[in-house]
Amino acid sequence: MAATTDPRDGADRRGTDPEFAGRRCAAIIGTGLIGQGWAIVFARKGWDVRLYDVNAAMLGEASALIRRQLDQLQAHGLLQDAAAAAARIHVADSLQDALKGASYIQENSPETREIKRSLFPLLDAAAEPDAIIGSSTSSIPASEFTEDLPGRHRCLVSHPVNPPYLIPVVELCPAPWTSADTMARARDIMRDIGQKPVSMTREIEGFILNRLQGALLHEAFRLAAAGIASAEDIDATVKDGLGLRWSFMGPFETIDLNAPGGIADYCGRYGGLYQSIGATQAESVAWEGALVDALSAERRRLLPDEDLTARRYWRDEQLMRLMRHKQSNGDEIG
Amino acid sequence: MAATTDPRDGADRRGTDPEFAGRRCAAIIGTGLIGQGWAIVFARKGWDVRLYDVNAAMLGEASALIRRQLDQLQAHGLLQDAAAAAARIHVADSLQDALKGASYIQENSPETREIKRSLFPLLDAAAEPDAIIGSSTSSIPASEFTEDLPGRHRCLVSHPVNPPYLIPVVELCPAPWTSADTMARARDIMRDIGQKPVSMTREIEGFILNRLQGALLHEAFRLAAAGIASAEDIDATVKDGLGLRWSFMGPFETIDLNAPGGIADYCGRYGGLYQSIGATQAESVAWEGALVDALSAERRRLLPDEDLTARRYWRDEQLMRLMRHKQSNGDEIG
Repeated sequence: MAATTDPRDGADRRGTDPEFAGRRCAAIIGTGLIGQGWAIVFARKGWDVRLYDVNAAMLGEASALIRRQLDQLQAHGLLQDAAAAAARIHVADSLQDALKGASYIQENSPETREIKRSLFPLLDAAAEPDAIIGSSTSSIPASEFTEDLPGRHRCLVSHPVNPPYLIPVVELCPAPWTSADTMARARDIMRDIGQKPVSMTREIEGFILNRLQGALLHEAFRLAAAGIASAEDIDATVKDGLGLRWSFMGPFETIDLNAPGGIADYCGRYGGLYQSIGATQAESVAWEGALVDALSAERRRLLPDEDLTARRYWRDEQLMRLMRHKQSNGDEIG
Repeated sequence: MAATTDPRDGADRRGTDPEFAGRRCAAIIGTGLIGQGWAIVFARKGWDVRLYDVNAAMLGEASALIRRQLDQLQAHGLLQDAAAAAARIHVADSLQDALKGASYIQENSPETREIKRSLFPLLDAAAEPDAIIGSSTSSIPASEFTEDLPGRHRCLVSHPVNPPYLIPVVELCPAPWTSADTMARARDIMRDIGQKPVSMTREIEGFILNRLQGALLHEAFRLAAAGIASAEDIDATVKDGLGLRWSFMGPFETIDLNAPGGIADYCGRYGGLYQSIGATQAESVAWEGALVDALSAERRRLLPDEDLTARRYWRDEQLMRLMRHKQSNGDEIG
């Protein structure tokens, strides 16, 4: 992979040229699956990418794994030039080397408060003055690991879905001290790389995506626990029903189009029914014990243990085909 | 459209030949939007279809509206021969004429208990002895309008999603007295016409689809009420995130693939997080007042009133493209 030079003329002016600091250059800290995914989404949209991981073995593997994914995206018609994208991704020798000149930093360390509390001071200290620092955490609010930082105003959660190069949504969640400018610039950057940013106004457990997923899952578990239908049929209700519209419209737009007078009309017509249903959905069942045993047994009948890995490839293949379908439909993704 | 004759030889032996009664012949009672949709799904799979509506004006319009939809499906590559499908659809002169020889009857009258309680005795009395009678109701359990019928064992709810020729799921919900044989045959018939049946074991308010949709919508309304994000961004979380996988996998399969050891492993890893989130989702906010005013105002900014109709055409166009995409992927739909 190429050296960390300015693609305008090949010179290395990282950190010396304010224009370079504002350029399209991202540092990916932590190069497991999620970090690799971030490297791909930045590089395929023309950003220079620096990879760094304290785990040298992980860092050593990352480039090859990223290249394989880029090639696969190209094979599926989702990327013009995998080699060019790969050439924009550089392995850094140190954290400092990775951060120098980067205008955006994405942290992908293990999901513990302790690691993030020890890593963020290092990131804040070595990052360019105007760089934004986003965390991939899916469950730890930024306020729990950025409070004492001089640069806490430029830190936020930028929560992706795996793999981010196939599922474009990114949840942007501020700590109480994250500046409005940071939120606006992070949103602009996510749009620039073809992701779909969702801007939150404040921290809430689970952010938005997992709260919505959890709400639907809790009802799926309740229905399974009550023996109303098989897991297979509950799944069919989504994949052959609800999920079709939700793959191109959100839940609000869906109901907005489902009554002659739009969403207000829909709420007037069906709000009572949904309130009545909602009253029976207050309690969640625990995801454990005999219920999970039964669900797991059904899933393993449908998909034996030894086929799990192949089915994950199938899922990613389906996502790639769906992305290509959406692109051919005019969606600007990736 | 053609007369109600036996396609084997053109003779009219409805009701006289037991083989004909068991043939692929459906009666559609009530020919509004839903009834039209049912006519399309049966006819495109080679069934003979009889249409009847007490509202003569509705019945008169139905054939032309169905033909327009069939032509549109053909134009989108979702149907080989719209003319042949249309030729299988016949307008009946009376309820008796519609039911004679039909092995499956789909009721699509207005959504009131009173109408269904007065219509079902007529259907049960005139239907062939072995015919199944399904109701399209989305909110009234079959037990509320079939209890006193001699043929109550053959009655059930067959709840479609609109339009059924683009969204294949059908919820099959029995009354306490619906026979297992009725449920099994209804499931076979739905599969025969390319729909995706979901078999429920007993009645529950909202069936499955609207309970799952309601659970997610309630969380969307809660997030909007709390000012966590705009309706547009909450929608993006679904259409650019959750909804992508859910368009080809259900929620259980999704989590089954999202932990190395499958669903049991997933529940062990994340069950606690989701329980914690679930504890904050017990109460639903009312879909009324200032909240709905604000959501409606945002939707009308994104989509002015005068564009609602065009957007519904866009939605159906998107669904047709998605169906074609899924078919090209090997899904057996329609």
